[in-house]
Amino acid sequence: MEITRKNFKQRLNFVTESINSADFLAVDGEFTGLDSNNGGHAMPFDTPEVRYQRVRQGACDFLLLQFGICTFHYDEAKMLYEARPFNFYLFPRPYSRTGPDIRFMCQSSSIEFLASQGFDFNKAFKDGISYLTPGDEANLREALQQKHQQFSQFSSPAFVTPDGVSQGTSKGPVSIPDEQKEFIKEICEKVSDFIEKLTEDKLSLPSCNGFQRKLIYQSLRAQFPSGIHLETQTGEKKERHIVVTRIKSEEDMKRREAEKQAAEVADLDNAVGFTKVIRAISQSGKLVVGHNMMLDLIHILHQFFYPLPESYEEFKDMCMSAFPKMLDTKLMASTSPFKDRIMSTVLADLQKILENKPFQKAQVEIAEKFSKYTTEKGPLHEAGYDAYLTGICFICMSNFLGTFQNPSQDIVPPSSPLVQPFTNKLFLMRVYDIPYLNLGGQDLTPNRDHVFHLTFPKEWKTSDIVHLFSPFGGSQIFWLNDTSAFASLHFKEDAQKALQSLRQPGTVYTIRTFQQYQHSKEGGQMASRKRSTTSTENNIANKKRKSLNVEAAPFVSRSITPPIPEENTENIDEPNGKHTDNTKAMETESSNVEDKKAEQMFVEPEVW
Amino acid sequence: MEITRKNFKQRLNFVTESINSADFLAVDGEFTGLDSNNGGHAMPFDTPEVRYQRVRQGACDFLLLQFGICTFHYDEAKMLYEARPFNFYLFPRPYSRTGPDIRFMCQSSSIEFLASQGFDFNKAFKDGISYLTPGDEANLREALQQKHQQFSQFSSPAFVTPDGVSQGTSKGPVSIPDEQKEFIKEICEKVSDFIEKLTEDKLSLPSCNGFQRKLIYQSLRAQFPSGIHLETQTGEKKERHIVVTRIKSEEDMKRREAEKQAAEVADLDNAVGFTKVIRAISQSGKLVVGHNMMLDLIHILHQFFYPLPESYEEFKDMCMSAFPKMLDTKLMASTSPFKDRIMSTVLADLQKILENKPFQKAQVEIAEKFSKYTTEKGPLHEAGYDAYLTGICFICMSNFLGTFQNPSQDIVPPSSPLVQPFTNKLFLMRVYDIPYLNLGGQDLTPNRDHVFHLTFPKEWKTSDIVHLFSPFGGSQIFWLNDTSAFASLHFKEDAQKALQSLRQPGTVYTIRTFQQYQHSKEGGQMASRKRSTTSTENNIANKKRKSLNVEAAPFVSRSITPPIPEENTENIDEPNGKHTDNTKAMETESSNVEDKKAEQMFVEPEVW
Repeated sequence: MEITRKNFKQRLNFVTESINSADFLAVDGEFTGLDSNNGGHAMPFDTPEVRYQRVRQGACDFLLLQFGICTFHYDEAKMLYEARPFNFYLFPRPYSRTGPDIRFMCQSSSIEFLASQGFDFNKAFKDGISYLTPGDEANLREALQQKHQQFSQFSSPAFVTPDGVSQGTSKGPVSIPDEQKEFIKEICEKVSDFIEKLTEDKLSLPSCNGFQRKLIYQSLRAQFPSGIHLETQTGEKKERHIVVTRIKSEEDMKRREAEKQAAEVADLDNAVGFTKVIRAISQSGKLVVGHNMMLDLIHILHQFFYPLPESYEEFKDMCMSAFPKMLDTKLMASTSPFKDRIMSTVLADLQKILENKPFQKAQVEIAEKFSKYTTEKGPLHEAGYDAYLTGICFICMSNFLGTFQNPSQDIVPPSSPLVQPFTNKLFLMRVYDIPYLNLGGQDLTPNRDHVFHLTFPKEWKTSDIVHLFSPFGGSQIFWLNDTSAFASLHFKEDAQKALQSLRQPGTVYTIRTFQQYQHSKEGGQMASRKRSTTSTENNIANKKRKSLNVEAAPFVSRSITPPIPEENTENIDEPNGKHTDNTKAMETESSNVEDKKAEQMFVEPEVW
Repeated sequence: MEITRKNFKQRLNFVTESINSADFLAVDGEFTGLDSNNGGHAMPFDTPEVRYQRVRQGACDFLLLQFGICTFHYDEAKMLYEARPFNFYLFPRPYSRTGPDIRFMCQSSSIEFLASQGFDFNKAFKDGISYLTPGDEANLREALQQKHQQFSQFSSPAFVTPDGVSQGTSKGPVSIPDEQKEFIKEICEKVSDFIEKLTEDKLSLPSCNGFQRKLIYQSLRAQFPSGIHLETQTGEKKERHIVVTRIKSEEDMKRREAEKQAAEVADLDNAVGFTKVIRAISQSGKLVVGHNMMLDLIHILHQFFYPLPESYEEFKDMCMSAFPKMLDTKLMASTSPFKDRIMSTVLADLQKILENKPFQKAQVEIAEKFSKYTTEKGPLHEAGYDAYLTGICFICMSNFLGTFQNPSQDIVPPSSPLVQPFTNKLFLMRVYDIPYLNLGGQDLTPNRDHVFHLTFPKEWKTSDIVHLFSPFGGSQIFWLNDTSAFASLHFKEDAQKALQSLRQPGTVYTIRTFQQYQHSKEGGQMASRKRSTTSTENNIANKKRKSLNVEAAPFVSRSITPPIPEENTENIDEPNGKHTDNTKAMETESSNVEDKKAEQMFVEPEVW
């Protein structure tokens, strides 16, 4: 069900009711970009905290432009889930002239990708539902109250005399220029007609520019000192015109003013808009399922709650208080017993894989009056549809857990203890040895004694590093840039030996343990490092391409993605290996690197 | 004539021909925003240099999304101008995966305004013409040459052996997972069919994810070590698939590779796209007319030439070398002999005013096959239409200059010395005593001895300041924020007297000369001051609204805009007086404050 500002008000109750009556709900967001380059680039040995800081700094400048919510309701009788997929268009329309005028960032590749998928930007910008953070809402309410109090002291603005204090250093009314005289004369005649004939209550004057409105105000005030009320209104196309209403009495005037103020309060209430839906989800305490949902979660908190805290622990608390129960289907699919049975955790692939043995197609039917999405050929990357797929994946995987029970359990509800181990863990993209960010408790801290940080001349190729470690059983190599990389020994027990024999005086390279690296400057700055924009990127890219070190795309783990012509070309083609990687690191379904995503499946954290 | 990437190639020659054969051309741009708040806010006593710095820092994060060029060709026989209005949609589509992935900013109010005017964002994002700066183009060309050289050494990528150096630490081909075996088997059969039957030259395999493509590459390479060429292609919806072509011989292979490389060069050429049009304008040396064109000019230079220089003088040189002859119709209309005859310099108003006495309607007809714009009811804020209006305004004003000649001159061509005085001067928005930024020479440096900078308690209202200066004949007041303002004495000769008697020990206010202010810290930082984003703005706004000092909207000069109920309300409504002012300062036709723009007409620099 598509929801814009045009039908939001009518639908809000139904949406809220759907949330509150759901067994669980799935969500998905579409963004104007993935990575502003402010957070530094994702790295294979990021800690969850470092990764949070990167995303916080790199993602919040972008906008959540479309939000999908699919509520799932289990029908005991039919023994299937009823799905209600809602697809919301969002836009931070400035509330009257008072609200914050948001500046937001777009990333060309993301915009182009959404456009290629048929995303309707006109609808988003024209009919997107507005929203306010609690902070902005509070400020605006207070301001509105103040304004209304003030006016109640002065009666209506139309009654402010031209000589009132409010006029400051004015030299008085401006004189009417010749070419405006005719226009103003006509207006005044119109109005006196309107006043004589008591037929109409309202008279809308033709829209005109600010100067003309100014002249109209001053002429009408002079000619009709009382008995009329003037108000400027703005049309669909932003053109403004004056509406004249007849005032029968001071009470009548007061009533009109009261109506106007009530309307203003209603407007503010509308401006809160979509934030109400997010609050409903939060208050429902229902299980919220997402696919690779870290980015979605961070945007939701940033856009509808409060600024993201600098403290990682506070962030965890914020998540848990906003959504006490979350589940990331990408993390679930990457964990036993699924990871060995699922070769691609990209949403569309995952959903198809889960339709076949050993899994069981989920029994889901779409509720009446909802767009009849089909899993065969749905509008991928439409938030409502992706949320729908995500929910289906969750159902399939949950039910699969039941098959290990004795007796086997066909339907495993979201509330089941079997699902518990997968909750409140966010998939950590392309972190080599930590599968998830643990919202519900302590994060994992794997042993990295066998991981080394290397620096070397920029002429070095993968083979040079390979050569270095082959005496010790070889290693995986994660390029960071032209002159540095991580190397992770295959045989952990040889770590000490390798370090001792490789750390020699007078070598062209330097080697140190991961721990030393982490305590060093670069390591410490991993999260806070700022990066400059495209032109520089392009130079780096160019530099890299000049050296044509096709292996130098950072941490494409060689042992898991054997280069093939296509891959080579892609590496060469990358504007900047870092960028590729970044896009991967930021994978969402609106990323435009499907095949990159597929590589995800290769990354199998060794600690599992 | 609407031009997108779909018809750009066919039209380019015609566009260039139109530019080169024109007597002059008018331009206009539509942007994703006006002011990022990074440049600090425009102030009534900004110097041209300070203003440049503000715009440079505040505007370049936004994108020029639509560009209008209207070429005007005088027809001696018909004694009228033929107009060719072109309307270009632009978008920095990342060139393959190599080009810069631009991050750009949007301003909600600007986007909402464009949407309300029916701007087609889908068309811009989907079919916008791409472009490259000369710097990026050079980098990409060099990279491409490098890549091609490299390949020519290795023959075609399809011939890189699985054991080649390029493979780094690979453990060799990945094993085909069970659920993929069927798929891969079918593919291999398809291909061997294709090879046996010699009917087709090309075989397109079904699109699939990167992992599947990887499996296909490795399986086909193993099964058909030679005789076929593999290439991955990307479809409209970004889905990628492998194309198999039969190789008859090594020469055939080389030819294919050559074709592929030629295609890549052609792609890069396309990516340069709209930059070619801008270069054509620059090389033509024709008079370029714009309306309030400072922002347009800055975006053009930034987006199609080079990063804007920090040095103001270098900026002037850059402008002159890019466009040796420019004219700003807003500046022209604000200058004698026009300023006293033109009450609104807002483009749409101006054009209408210029149709009536004492001016003469311009004789212009739109060329065949071009959208038949009418000045009565055209698509305002469509760049092509605004450029058309701008050109018409220029013609009217030029011809009007002829009426002062003896004998009177009906048609004044752009080349006429009468037009000369108005060229290469950019309108300076809302600067109180400097009408223009002088690209062609020294800027004006008006005497400001009668201008004072005040600081005071935030409870102060305009009346308090008025009171301060009334003994000296009063002043104009320009609010900067809650606690500071500029005051400009009406009677300049009393400046010394006023300063002496007002600068007393123990006053709650401080007063200093403009010169002192300029040399002070704030003054010095005027241009470089960074500002935070909306949330803060909103707080300030809220604060201001709390104090409800309706006069406190910064430098709405009271002597020229007497407050009226509407204006009061608007002031109160402003999210932040500074912001309003900012929008004014940044006035372009895509600003959404028409009535604010109208105020422009009041601002009559006293030095003229």
